[in-house]
Amino acid sequence: MNQTTIIDAMRELAGVANVLESDADMAPHLIDWRKRHSGRAACVVFPRDTAQVSKVLAWCDARGVKVFPQGGNTSVCGGSVPDASGNSILLNLAKMNRIVEINADNNSMTVEAGCILADLQQAALDADRIFPLTLGAEGSCQIGGNIATNAGGTNVLRFGNTRDLVLGLEVVLADGRIWNGIRTLRKNNSGYDLKNLFVGAEGTLGVVTQAALKLYPRPRATATAMLGVATVNDAVQEGLKLQAAFPGELVGLELISRSEFEISLRHAAKARNPFGETPAWMVLVELAASSGNDEAIAARLTDALAPSFEAGVIVDAIVAASAQQRADLWHIRHHVTEANGREGMGLTHDIAVPTYRIPDFMAAAEQTLAAHYPQATQVVVGHMGDGNLHYIAMFSHEYWASVADKVGTQLALSHRLYDIAASMGGTFSAEHGIGALHVPEMSLYKDANEIALMRQMKQLLDPNDTMNPGRVVPASSASAAA
Amino acid sequence: MNQTTIIDAMRELAGVANVLESDADMAPHLIDWRKRHSGRAACVVFPRDTAQVSKVLAWCDARGVKVFPQGGNTSVCGGSVPDASGNSILLNLAKMNRIVEINADNNSMTVEAGCILADLQQAALDADRIFPLTLGAEGSCQIGGNIATNAGGTNVLRFGNTRDLVLGLEVVLADGRIWNGIRTLRKNNSGYDLKNLFVGAEGTLGVVTQAALKLYPRPRATATAMLGVATVNDAVQEGLKLQAAFPGELVGLELISRSEFEISLRHAAKARNPFGETPAWMVLVELAASSGNDEAIAARLTDALAPSFEAGVIVDAIVAASAQQRADLWHIRHHVTEANGREGMGLTHDIAVPTYRIPDFMAAAEQTLAAHYPQATQVVVGHMGDGNLHYIAMFSHEYWASVADKVGTQLALSHRLYDIAASMGGTFSAEHGIGALHVPEMSLYKDANEIALMRQMKQLLDPNDTMNPGRVVPASSASAAA
Repeated sequence: MNQTTIIDAMRELAGVANVLESDADMAPHLIDWRKRHSGRAACVVFPRDTAQVSKVLAWCDARGVKVFPQGGNTSVCGGSVPDASGNSILLNLAKMNRIVEINADNNSMTVEAGCILADLQQAALDADRIFPLTLGAEGSCQIGGNIATNAGGTNVLRFGNTRDLVLGLEVVLADGRIWNGIRTLRKNNSGYDLKNLFVGAEGTLGVVTQAALKLYPRPRATATAMLGVATVNDAVQEGLKLQAAFPGELVGLELISRSEFEISLRHAAKARNPFGETPAWMVLVELAASSGNDEAIAARLTDALAPSFEAGVIVDAIVAASAQQRADLWHIRHHVTEANGREGMGLTHDIAVPTYRIPDFMAAAEQTLAAHYPQATQVVVGHMGDGNLHYIAMFSHEYWASVADKVGTQLALSHRLYDIAASMGGTFSAEHGIGALHVPEMSLYKDANEIALMRQMKQLLDPNDTMNPGRVVPASSASAAA
Repeated sequence: MNQTTIIDAMRELAGVANVLESDADMAPHLIDWRKRHSGRAACVVFPRDTAQVSKVLAWCDARGVKVFPQGGNTSVCGGSVPDASGNSILLNLAKMNRIVEINADNNSMTVEAGCILADLQQAALDADRIFPLTLGAEGSCQIGGNIATNAGGTNVLRFGNTRDLVLGLEVVLADGRIWNGIRTLRKNNSGYDLKNLFVGAEGTLGVVTQAALKLYPRPRATATAMLGVATVNDAVQEGLKLQAAFPGELVGLELISRSEFEISLRHAAKARNPFGETPAWMVLVELAASSGNDEAIAARLTDALAPSFEAGVIVDAIVAASAQQRADLWHIRHHVTEANGREGMGLTHDIAVPTYRIPDFMAAAEQTLAAHYPQATQVVVGHMGDGNLHYIAMFSHEYWASVADKVGTQLALSHRLYDIAASMGGTFSAEHGIGALHVPEMSLYKDANEIALMRQMKQLLDPNDTMNPGRVVPASSASAAA
């Protein structure tokens, strides 16, 4: 179908003002923020409501026009830009950004898919509640994208992944059917759980247009500390102790390698090293309680840490004594992605293993890196309490420019690391999802019966392969070969 | 197919010792514990492992023999007994009751589907952890049934429904294919979430054979209190305050009407009224903390309750001063089902509404009962923090014996109550599921698009309608009529 026909139809269905078609206007939507993935589209459509989404999908599905949904375009897996065909539409939810209802008594809010995560966090605070999903891209990512990718972040340990925060969804299916599953109930055992099929499906089974989300009481007291330890095993052991000691209060448990810490200090504006001598590994700990005050919970944290401190396992520790000190500690953590981008060419991996296997993973990964990629620096930052590590092989820009087979080098490294994680019951994609980037790994690392089931689901809900084609589920031939 | 052929095949596939075929041997498996639902079967099969389940299902699916899975047979919706055809097999998982692994460091355990819930709770305690799923039938229900029905219970407020406790599943599909989704990861965004499709599907999409489950640190301090208030609105307001004050520590928040309280006292052995004068409504509160001691957390609870006590909203309160007093308070709560059975003919409803709407639901329900069923006593017990009420219309055995159209009377009452719940965004089945009993309500109360999607899922995964036929998903004609 030619581009003009598609544009005319979209103007008709969504309104002229809601369709972009010039190269200049479309450009920011056709490349990801790290400039690693790009694509083309006939036009970019900004629907204003669910009915428009339904009409657009029905029109496209009936005519073989592919639809690529996009939220804040913050995917790190090429999941938020279209493919190279150029005859598809990009469907951006940004103009569906209404907060439909906030109900503090029910600890719930109902919102449109295009709401920016940070705006939802603020709206919850304004109602004396929190929406606990917290991640680096929160200032630009949209909740629809968070839901589509089952986003993780730094609060998963206490509040779960995005999946765990979703009470109900409204979804437009590929053929334009609207499933209204908006509910704010905590218990509802009336039939199959359809909701969770769409959470994490990355827009390949339909478009999330609205969501009912959980809120939580706003914590009244917070304690934040940065612990220094000598080995990753010490870090994990301290983490397990904290998990056992503060199960309802431990909200953050982040692991940071010295290399990552120094990169962040080097590039993040206003970052300051709180340690005299930077330890080999840092653990960023945050507790939040619904009663008491900051001093009291900090004292309980300090008491809990005392034995390890006295035993010399914790070699240094900073307990934030003010909101500013807390913000300074998190500043170092939150700026790692940006800082890594300035530092060099970082090949990032988003693996997970059971938390107690992290030391085993690290030992094997370190050996692999030293043996095969001696030019790389090992940089590690991760959500330790979830067993989720961002393991980064950092090459200098100069060295990377000299690598002839960049794709081959990256794949070979990645597969060595994924093999290690898989051998420990782990995964090659903990929170970043599949997107376009990791489809080959699906065939390599997932059970054939599981891939077959996913393909059946895709075939059932999107028989014409209209929605985000080529993402998440490998094509039949690719899987047959696996 | 004749019964002999089926029995011979099952003996061949599962072993002679694992097949029951005499009426006397099968009898306890063919009727539910409340003696309200019964069925027939060609034989009862007790597979010993997943491979046997796979072989049995493949054999049956290829020959049109229906399979009814059964755990501890504790369903209250006729979900755990076969239909009346008599040419099906009943598949009981009781002999697959191995705990495969308990890993305290990873806060996880992997178990076979036939494990009794209470045995898993004890195994977790032995590892200094808890498996928090807690419900009345825990001494006989099997974890596979808990997973198939997404069981709720008294700890949902803090730890979620069974769904939230499942890390991974192994499922045998209708055609005998085995999906091995056993994982103990906290984060894994690699493809569609298949797990949640089987949790709560009540065995209609396949048989859960193994599960990886979450464990939690064992609480170190507990406080239990029974509050008396004058109105259901006061109960809910006190509950909302406690939810806001103790979000990581409030594990139980149960509502009990005076009528229910007195019934339990009347019939439960060793139950003793802790109140001088029984208040109109009771709220059973339990807090659990990972540090401190019972006295400290009880003091915090007492402090939190003080303003309402002084204001006269809480008219009486018992704070348990010992483990025995705690057990006594829970004894009254846990024996309501048994006591209700002795009291009379209770027509039980398992509705949920948003918690803050409970007073509205109760006002409308009370009016309905008084206007249309003046012979009934209103008896209420429920998981207030989840918005889940068991609303029971209690008739004397004598009166009920005189009712000519028992089914019609029950349905008319139920639908009046379900209409009220539905008008408040609620559900007709919060935690008990659908089984055979509530299939008609699916067509009445669920969105047509949602029923259509469920039917598509059933058709996809069980095209021959082998698994638990007639349960959960209404047949096409029924839904078309709705």
